[in-house]
Amino acid sequence: MPLPYLPLPHLVNPHGDCAMTFVTSSPYPYPYNGDLRPENTVLLIIDMQIDFCGGGGYVDRMGYDLSLTRAPIEPIRRVLRAFRKGGFPVIHTREGHRSDLSDLPGNKRWRSRQIGAGIGDPGPCGKILVRGEPGWEIIPELAPLPGEPIIDKPGKGSFYATDLDLLLRGKGIQNIILTGITTDVCVHTTMRDANDRGYECLLLTDCTGATDLGNYQAAIKMIQMQGGVFGAIAPSEALLKTLETMTIQPPAQQPDAVISSSNH
Amino acid sequence: MPLPYLPLPHLVNPHGDCAMTFVTSSPYPYPYNGDLRPENTVLLIIDMQIDFCGGGGYVDRMGYDLSLTRAPIEPIRRVLRAFRKGGFPVIHTREGHRSDLSDLPGNKRWRSRQIGAGIGDPGPCGKILVRGEPGWEIIPELAPLPGEPIIDKPGKGSFYATDLDLLLRGKGIQNIILTGITTDVCVHTTMRDANDRGYECLLLTDCTGATDLGNYQAAIKMIQMQGGVFGAIAPSEALLKTLETMTIQPPAQQPDAVISSSNH
Amino acid sequence: MPLPYLPLPHLVNPHGDCAMTFVTSSPYPYPYNGDLRPENTVLLIIDMQIDFCGGGGYVDRMGYDLSLTRAPIEPIRRVLRAFRKGGFPVIHTREGHRSDLSDLPGNKRWRSRQIGAGIGDPGPCGKILVRGEPGWEIIPELAPLPGEPIIDKPGKGSFYATDLDLLLRGKGIQNIILTGITTDVCVHTTMRDANDRGYECLLLTDCTGATDLGNYQAAIKMIQMQGGVFGAIAPSEALLKTLETMTIQPPAQQPDAVISSSNH
Amino acid sequence: MPLPYLPLPHLVNPHGDCAMTFVTSSPYPYPYNGDLRPENTVLLIIDMQIDFCGGGGYVDRMGYDLSLTRAPIEPIRRVLRAFRKGGFPVIHTREGHRSDLSDLPGNKRWRSRQIGAGIGDPGPCGKILVRGEPGWEIIPELAPLPGEPIIDKPGKGSFYATDLDLLLRGKGIQNIILTGITTDVCVHTTMRDANDRGYECLLLTDCTGATDLGNYQAAIKMIQMQGGVFGAIAPSEALLKTLETMTIQPPAQQPDAVISSSNH
Repeated sequence: MPLPYLPLPHLVNPHGDCAMTFVTSSPYPYPYNGDLRPENTVLLIIDMQIDFCGGGGYVDRMGYDLSLTRAPIEPIRRVLRAFRKGGFPVIHTREGHRSDLSDLPGNKRWRSRQIGAGIGDPGPCGKILVRGEPGWEIIPELAPLPGEPIIDKPGKGSFYATDLDLLLRGKGIQNIILTGITTDVCVHTTMRDANDRGYECLLLTDCTGATDLGNYQAAIKMIQMQGGVFGAIAPSEALLKTLETMTIQPPAQQPDAVISSSNH
Repeated sequence: MPLPYLPLPHLVNPHGDCAMTFVTSSPYPYPYNGDLRPENTVLLIIDMQIDFCGGGGYVDRMGYDLSLTRAPIEPIRRVLRAFRKGGFPVIHTREGHRSDLSDLPGNKRWRSRQIGAGIGDPGPCGKILVRGEPGWEIIPELAPLPGEPIIDKPGKGSFYATDLDLLLRGKGIQNIILTGITTDVCVHTTMRDANDRGYECLLLTDCTGATDLGNYQAAIKMIQMQGGVFGAIAPSEALLKTLETMTIQPPAQQPDAVISSSNH
Repeated sequence: MPLPYLPLPHLVNPHGDCAMTFVTSSPYPYPYNGDLRPENTVLLIIDMQIDFCGGGGYVDRMGYDLSLTRAPIEPIRRVLRAFRKGGFPVIHTREGHRSDLSDLPGNKRWRSRQIGAGIGDPGPCGKILVRGEPGWEIIPELAPLPGEPIIDKPGKGSFYATDLDLLLRGKGIQNIILTGITTDVCVHTTMRDANDRGYECLLLTDCTGATDLGNYQAAIKMIQMQGGVFGAIAPSEALLKTLETMTIQPPAQQPDAVISSSNH
Repeated sequence: MPLPYLPLPHLVNPHGDCAMTFVTSSPYPYPYNGDLRPENTVLLIIDMQIDFCGGGGYVDRMGYDLSLTRAPIEPIRRVLRAFRKGGFPVIHTREGHRSDLSDLPGNKRWRSRQIGAGIGDPGPCGKILVRGEPGWEIIPELAPLPGEPIIDKPGKGSFYATDLDLLLRGKGIQNIILTGITTDVCVHTTMRDANDRGYECLLLTDCTGATDLGNYQAAIKMIQMQGGVFGAIAPSEALLKTLETMTIQPPAQQPDAVISSSNH
């Protein structure tokens, strides 16, 4: 272990043609079935908010080093540009709570207060982790475009109490490319929940970061156990190389899309 | 059948004191365990939006008689006033879709267009059933107060792809008082899903309406089958009488509450 | 209203070829997009258990007329035979509770006892609505074959607290043909929840029944409101006729399938 | 950071009396509100199956060292004995798939085959990770007693596609004590999903194990970030000491309980 990849009879591109597309990833070439297309693959950018990687936000208030959670900004930017150019769908997420805190579990609030960064309490970027406040906004470098849905989530996972699964279903998504912060918390929880639902997941190692380097490294390693227990990992360069080999036609303009800063 | 109510050993108010509170309802006095308090009971007002009971909205465009869906406005208003006075929590819901329609299943869109009221298409009240448009707003008569959460839902049920269950959990809710429109569609779906989760449900018959009178009557009847298969029903007068007998202290002011027209 | 069906540009079979398949149904030809194939269409048979249509079971104990819930047996049998022959997937459901009743909400138990048919209490067919008891078994006329999954559900809906959605996802299902009992309770709740998730649903009118004829009729009518608010309805004859026109090749034998009387 | 624990006005035992109960844990005394009782606290034992810690099972077939996943057996046994004695509820989980593999995502199967331990393929303990097979059984040392529910789950998390949440709700659970294997996969996914739902979680460090020591250590560390981002951790000795200080009366015998080897 790792064993060599066995030729398997069911490794057939369900799309029907011979061309299979793989990213050079670990512990196996992604996606497992070689079916990577703009019609079935989404870029998910998790919680790139001021609260998690901006000055005066939640993570800053807890006293963590911001350089770790800011490191993925540029790599994500490059992947985002390539996905937009290739006509792939993009979805962003934001962690945050209702301003009346009715969706904030008591223990989550208590813990945040214990470490001096109480959710809902005033901070330099407005009420900490509250929807509509400055700190909750996605950083300008990665601002969503019109037609790129934003998932507002109250938890660490992106599926619980949100419409993410409905959106993925509607788009016919099978493959999820995961980026964002933090690796060991929101990104990992989302990857685990996506994997249980049967989505084929790839984490881009340089497009994610954690508040602690050891936790980042461990989170990357965990994914590769058991032949890829939650999916696969790759540097963004590997994915970009694969995209370059694909002949992709941008989709027709979607006239309904408008800029939405919330989930309206 | 209906059989007389048997004395059951587990019919004990879990709150521990002797006082039990019941509403005169059918097919049994509500709630089943007599534990009705502001701490465990919520008023749920479903989809009282212009699109469902206002001129030029979705239901109007489909050609239905608005008087049926407008009938519950005044009764809901009275109950809402009593609940607010008694310090009970209130939650509102809105059906509507993201402006890019990414949460709109293809068949739902197709059907709405077939009958000349295409979701997302322009209408007298803006894009039909789209978040942020005039037709999607809750009618002024029942406008939410600060601190009353609003659930934005893409479907008929209020639990699917929303944070409603998280909110009910956080508030310690056991009993749900259902009002709103339409009786046989969104209200019934929500009642069914709430009942499966173990919530004790009461539908207020005059606080709800449908686009068709027969469907309204059938929806009321269905609830009372099998000893109350989805809960119980009562006129709002019965509930108001019960509230009057309770000595209720309004809760302390919640300083965090602010007006929110969306789920921020 | 109903308006004539408009020609819509997006009414295109996503499978890519020209052949579109429709069932003569109301209020629109089913499925909306003409894409009806064994690969994307499942027959769902809901709760055809002794407790709901057999002597001495739960419904019998409540004093309802069994002829109404037994009426769909033969029509379902014909459709089941056609679906098996055509290589369509089939899924069965069973309502029932764990023998320790840990999944039985307190109000559901209380109500059943009030009407003399206490869930978990002994009856002529074993403990009422309890898994593993004789009354809980699917009736022999519609016994599942090896490889036809059975969903054990604690509620009225088939999605809550079950793996149904995971199974549908895995099979690539888009269309659900609904049959079983009772029309207004378990079948309707399942249809509503499936519809909210974007599945395209067809209820076969003669393949379902209720404990009350009026409720049965109202449940059928409700579906056809708003251009098909939960999907469409048709007699089974219409579906069988459509199947006859399709040239269907039975799938290759699935060697893994074994007889399973539970969800092992 | 970690900051000293601040006295907070809302740190009040909702049960109403003065006695608060805490376990000496990290990064804060558990539970946060001091409300630890048999009525609101469950012991969750995750996947202590032959496939994960027995000879010839799934983990053994993948070539991992079994001593790591077998280490928690004795510590869990001690905690299980204390919980049973104290009248606390206990829930067990099992990962496994339907024998027709209809609940097995294609990528999960493919990955398992790549590493020579194909789910559903024959092994020394029967078909790997399939319900009803010898390898899928809970190890005899930790065999469930009558009345202790078993959750059969198709994924790594214990909430997805199961009735766990319904059971916890029915029992009035607020606190979850997590044990079992493997720490970084099924235990962590379950802890994350429980935490998002508002449950207050404690992982017992010696009652859990992973296939890799570094992953075990990292999983423990991750929990303690951000003031306890997923809850708290403690050695089982700390919890047992706390239980000794509580005066607990065993609950009345539950006559309905019967031995169940499946989820019937």
